[in-house]
Amino acid sequence: MIPKIAFPSLSDIEAAAERIAKWAHRTPVMTSSAIDAIAGCRLFFKCENFQKVGAFKFRGASNTVLSFSDEEAAAGVATHSSGNHAQALALAASLRGIPAHIVMPSNAPLIKKTAVAGYGARIVECEPTLEARETTLDAVISETGAEFVHPYNDVRVITGQATAARELIQDIPDLDILMTPVGGGGLLSGSSLSAHYLSPDTQVIAAEPEGADDALRSFRAGYIIPSKDPCTIADGLLTSLGDKTFAIIRQHVQDIVSVPDEATIRAMRLIWERMNIIVEPSAAVPLAAILERRIDSDGKRVGIILSGGNMDLDRLPWMDNG
Amino acid sequence: MIPKIAFPSLSDIEAAAERIAKWAHRTPVMTSSAIDAIAGCRLFFKCENFQKVGAFKFRGASNTVLSFSDEEAAAGVATHSSGNHAQALALAASLRGIPAHIVMPSNAPLIKKTAVAGYGARIVECEPTLEARETTLDAVISETGAEFVHPYNDVRVITGQATAARELIQDIPDLDILMTPVGGGGLLSGSSLSAHYLSPDTQVIAAEPEGADDALRSFRAGYIIPSKDPCTIADGLLTSLGDKTFAIIRQHVQDIVSVPDEATIRAMRLIWERMNIIVEPSAAVPLAAILERRIDSDGKRVGIILSGGNMDLDRLPWMDNG
Repeated sequence: MIPKIAFPSLSDIEAAAERIAKWAHRTPVMTSSAIDAIAGCRLFFKCENFQKVGAFKFRGASNTVLSFSDEEAAAGVATHSSGNHAQALALAASLRGIPAHIVMPSNAPLIKKTAVAGYGARIVECEPTLEARETTLDAVISETGAEFVHPYNDVRVITGQATAARELIQDIPDLDILMTPVGGGGLLSGSSLSAHYLSPDTQVIAAEPEGADDALRSFRAGYIIPSKDPCTIADGLLTSLGDKTFAIIRQHVQDIVSVPDEATIRAMRLIWERMNIIVEPSAAVPLAAILERRIDSDGKRVGIILSGGNMDLDRLPWMDNG
Repeated sequence: MIPKIAFPSLSDIEAAAERIAKWAHRTPVMTSSAIDAIAGCRLFFKCENFQKVGAFKFRGASNTVLSFSDEEAAAGVATHSSGNHAQALALAASLRGIPAHIVMPSNAPLIKKTAVAGYGARIVECEPTLEARETTLDAVISETGAEFVHPYNDVRVITGQATAARELIQDIPDLDILMTPVGGGGLLSGSSLSAHYLSPDTQVIAAEPEGADDALRSFRAGYIIPSKDPCTIADGLLTSLGDKTFAIIRQHVQDIVSVPDEATIRAMRLIWERMNIIVEPSAAVPLAAILERRIDSDGKRVGIILSGGNMDLDRLPWMDNG
């Protein structure tokens, strides 16, 4: 049973774009004739790896934080995340001058904790279990009165993420296909709404790691199948869909395909080598799907949202210790 | 004794800009508030790592190849280089549809040979000595009638390289300082001319590795001191100045400073991590000079030309086998 939710409207997305413009970068669209030749299509890469905190997540976080009244904002925000959403929310809160409480498992990498603390957020450690994470977050919220900002299953967040595809469509108006990776579905659902409103002839196709293909299976089944023991190098794509993101995805996404991690690593390295930009594995999954011929892209114009660029340069997948 | 040479004029540089516009990218200028905070100044990075073949060298090569009449062009071009100039000249020749003969030492890395061959150039191998290189090049030229295009000591090449600084000055008109790395001096001499004509209050300062500081010593001495047994990770900066580049540099460059390779590696990693772009060690030398406080840049507006981004990703300096 899919709950009825009010999908963000075009004017909601436009309001978000206006709201975040003072903080977020309008990121460039890059092309590579070398990769086009290999892929057999014309690719347009929307470089959210150049977004603040190195990921599209800053759009949703700042849209949410900027939508509060001063009174609502005062108690701050809280979330559970050890990834890009944590950094994004920490920075957005810091820019607004309000507290951010980030619940992180005690075994989260030091590099992630340092980044979040660097934006002035308070880190609340918990045991590395789903249950501990939720009870710790509940405790933080009841203690501080902070507003919970979910990493993706929140209409304000989805609306913010939608602004990336809107910019891409403004810059490249005649895309045949728009691709994003899918984890919890915030970027995908937002992108599919922007395409629906602004470029209705564009097909929206998501790509997912084979080792975390719960979105693909949910899409086929028609109900949410939670991610269980996901295993992939694309550590931004481990989570399950939410009811809000799934409702939008069912209605506005045409297909979801999956690729093995080896293909993702090859695609990521190709982007590094041919474009001289750094993207994280999650961002390379759509290109991997094209190079593996998992979608019918021959000769087409394909937009890809490069979701982020946060990499530990000491642990690259082609290094011995990677 | 410095020979009298006719320096490229502003209208020469403008003609080159117009000539190469159909092939070369107008590269973006990027900024990083995180690096600004560390450096204590406002930095504007001209991203020639996004230029065709991944380096500014494509500007000089294409300006030269496009300046030929059809008759002059027919016999093709020749050079000795195992670096970015070889790839740049190979691609420019291929775009013009003329032959390119590239003399490379037999011990040049396979990755470099493959790149040059990939642009359709003919590789002529020679023993890895200066003498063999020159006699082989002479033989190629007398056999084919090809035009020699020196990697830097050629007014057509210098004029092409000058177009990068011209674009940077157009985009950021009020720079206090303009920095480039210096090897043979093609980029530096061209940049100093553009600054002289278009932004005369901007100081032009070059940065060089301590292990290849022949340009600094030549600049101080007032005559060319050849590079002898250079030892640096910045493999684009091993060569000596030429008489043409040196004459311009003496007149239009305010200072040259040097930095140890450790500082260059730190600066390069900072650019990778904070900007999510890939630059080669040579490109990071100017930022290293700023971070090492080798120049007075506090609070100033500093333009840096990121000269290139060609890296072997299997051999990064922070990897065990790097």
